[in-house]
Amino acid sequence: MRSEFDLIARHFYRPTPQTRLGPGDDCALFSPSPGMELAATSDLLACGVHFLPDADPAHLGWKSLAVNLSDLAAMGAKARWALLALSLPAADEDWLAAFSTGFFACARQFGVDLAGGDTTRGPLSLCVTALGEIPAGQALRRDGAKAGDDIWLSGHPGLAALGLRRLRGEIALPEPLCRLCLQRLQAPVPRLLLGQMLRPIAHAAIDISDGLMADVRHIAERSRLTAEIFLHQLPRLPRGVERAIALDALLCGGDDYELAFTADPGQRPALARLAAQLDIPLWRIGRMRADAAASTAQLIDSEGKIVPLEKQGYDHFSMPPSVS
Amino acid sequence: MRSEFDLIARHFYRPTPQTRLGPGDDCALFSPSPGMELAATSDLLACGVHFLPDADPAHLGWKSLAVNLSDLAAMGAKARWALLALSLPAADEDWLAAFSTGFFACARQFGVDLAGGDTTRGPLSLCVTALGEIPAGQALRRDGAKAGDDIWLSGHPGLAALGLRRLRGEIALPEPLCRLCLQRLQAPVPRLLLGQMLRPIAHAAIDISDGLMADVRHIAERSRLTAEIFLHQLPRLPRGVERAIALDALLCGGDDYELAFTADPGQRPALARLAAQLDIPLWRIGRMRADAAASTAQLIDSEGKIVPLEKQGYDHFSMPPSVS
Repeated sequence: MRSEFDLIARHFYRPTPQTRLGPGDDCALFSPSPGMELAATSDLLACGVHFLPDADPAHLGWKSLAVNLSDLAAMGAKARWALLALSLPAADEDWLAAFSTGFFACARQFGVDLAGGDTTRGPLSLCVTALGEIPAGQALRRDGAKAGDDIWLSGHPGLAALGLRRLRGEIALPEPLCRLCLQRLQAPVPRLLLGQMLRPIAHAAIDISDGLMADVRHIAERSRLTAEIFLHQLPRLPRGVERAIALDALLCGGDDYELAFTADPGQRPALARLAAQLDIPLWRIGRMRADAAASTAQLIDSEGKIVPLEKQGYDHFSMPPSVS
Repeated sequence: MRSEFDLIARHFYRPTPQTRLGPGDDCALFSPSPGMELAATSDLLACGVHFLPDADPAHLGWKSLAVNLSDLAAMGAKARWALLALSLPAADEDWLAAFSTGFFACARQFGVDLAGGDTTRGPLSLCVTALGEIPAGQALRRDGAKAGDDIWLSGHPGLAALGLRRLRGEIALPEPLCRLCLQRLQAPVPRLLLGQMLRPIAHAAIDISDGLMADVRHIAERSRLTAEIFLHQLPRLPRGVERAIALDALLCGGDDYELAFTADPGQRPALARLAAQLDIPLWRIGRMRADAAASTAQLIDSEGKIVPLEKQGYDHFSMPPSVS
């Protein structure tokens, strides 16, 4: 059996052109760019909770980095560096080769150096830390929404949740929808460029990892406003799946990594141009409202009534775990 | 049951005076100091592998941060920020309260802000990422040792390994040695100030996490030299434990988080002064030698002969796991 050090070197030492000192020392070293702030985020993924034991390691490698890059995207950051801490039951070279292939495919696509980390023996789990840069003072925070702001949503959230229900055998999905849903679940694309372009436009942003209503509620709470989501302004639902199921996936399914953000209504033309430029659908789905009584997210029907929602997204301790 | 968000807020949101934006958003934000490089390190600790299921959560909280700060110390960095990603089987408030108490005791002592992270449900495991700053170009790397350098060691490595063997019931230890060994195992003290003071003095440094011989070998390999450790120059062994056991713990036991470093022999007076100033024993235990044939670490007896070593420290895949 190869030792830990050989295995790490073989699969995880790749050129790190933006890093002063890459893997192999006590720490990674990098030089932040002058005038930039650093954005940092860390996510731990455990086997059987965040992914199934038989998950394709290449998908897992991609996704473990992509979900962290999505947090950078939601701040408007440019992604630069990542650290990977990996715990594995045995030094399984095939698994490592596939995992690192997926990880580096994502790293290459978004210009990220794997700068360092840690490999150890133990139950299969992994933790990725991602670091990015933002011009000082320009980060898109959750607490920046203003009363009167439009609420916007990118892409087609809900597809990942449909893919997960399909994998669990709970629903059937016609092709090619099925393939698309699985792709969103297994290889989500962080909206990094969109996030950076939104810096001068948006007031607040978040990525949809826990579900649209739950994540918009985070913006509402941090900004001390109420978020009204208009049912009739939501993205059209995919065909070939029951409307209630698709709507539930859109509103409460997690794991999509699209962005929700707020912006002044005066930015509507700029956002229409940005959607066309990036070829990403941007939906104006609601508005932020001052509300002395509560900071929450409400779904409003076409008659202006609040639609009750049974659940409002994924709370990691009170809801069943997601597995993908 | 409290939700995840309440629990995180209650136990992990503390003031973060050196952080632009602390926990609660997609990312933490901080402003690196001008002219400084960033050092970053990440360690994943799994229950049953790196700690026992009944480990005191306060010790675990301290140690999970301390082992990462030790990596910063080994680079000569000043510790500044940490991220904590935590996976817990259930939202156990008592456990979280004790864990966060230990974690923040360490953070406070070494001036670190807990800037962000992630909490999720799953098997008990945790990943800490630590970030520090170093004046550009001054990091103590593993590859900087020169032929003719002295090899130095801080403190009394081996005590943590004796403590672990005691916990496993393999050896008996007299008091007060027993208490000291358990303290080193459960609440190690990262040598941050020593690391920073060594920047103008040392050529290379590493922390003793895998065992003295194994870690010195890393310096040898990265510097393409052979490290000779002189048996008769090692720190005196603790009394009350069999010599062979104590020597094995010193040479091959991990988990101590003392520093090994190399320096020009002309620095001996400066290091004597530093030891007195910091009240930390510094032992001159060997020397770096040019060796065309191999880059390794050798233990040399008083007659100049190589002492064979059965094992040379902890390889995370080929050795039994440490539990503390």
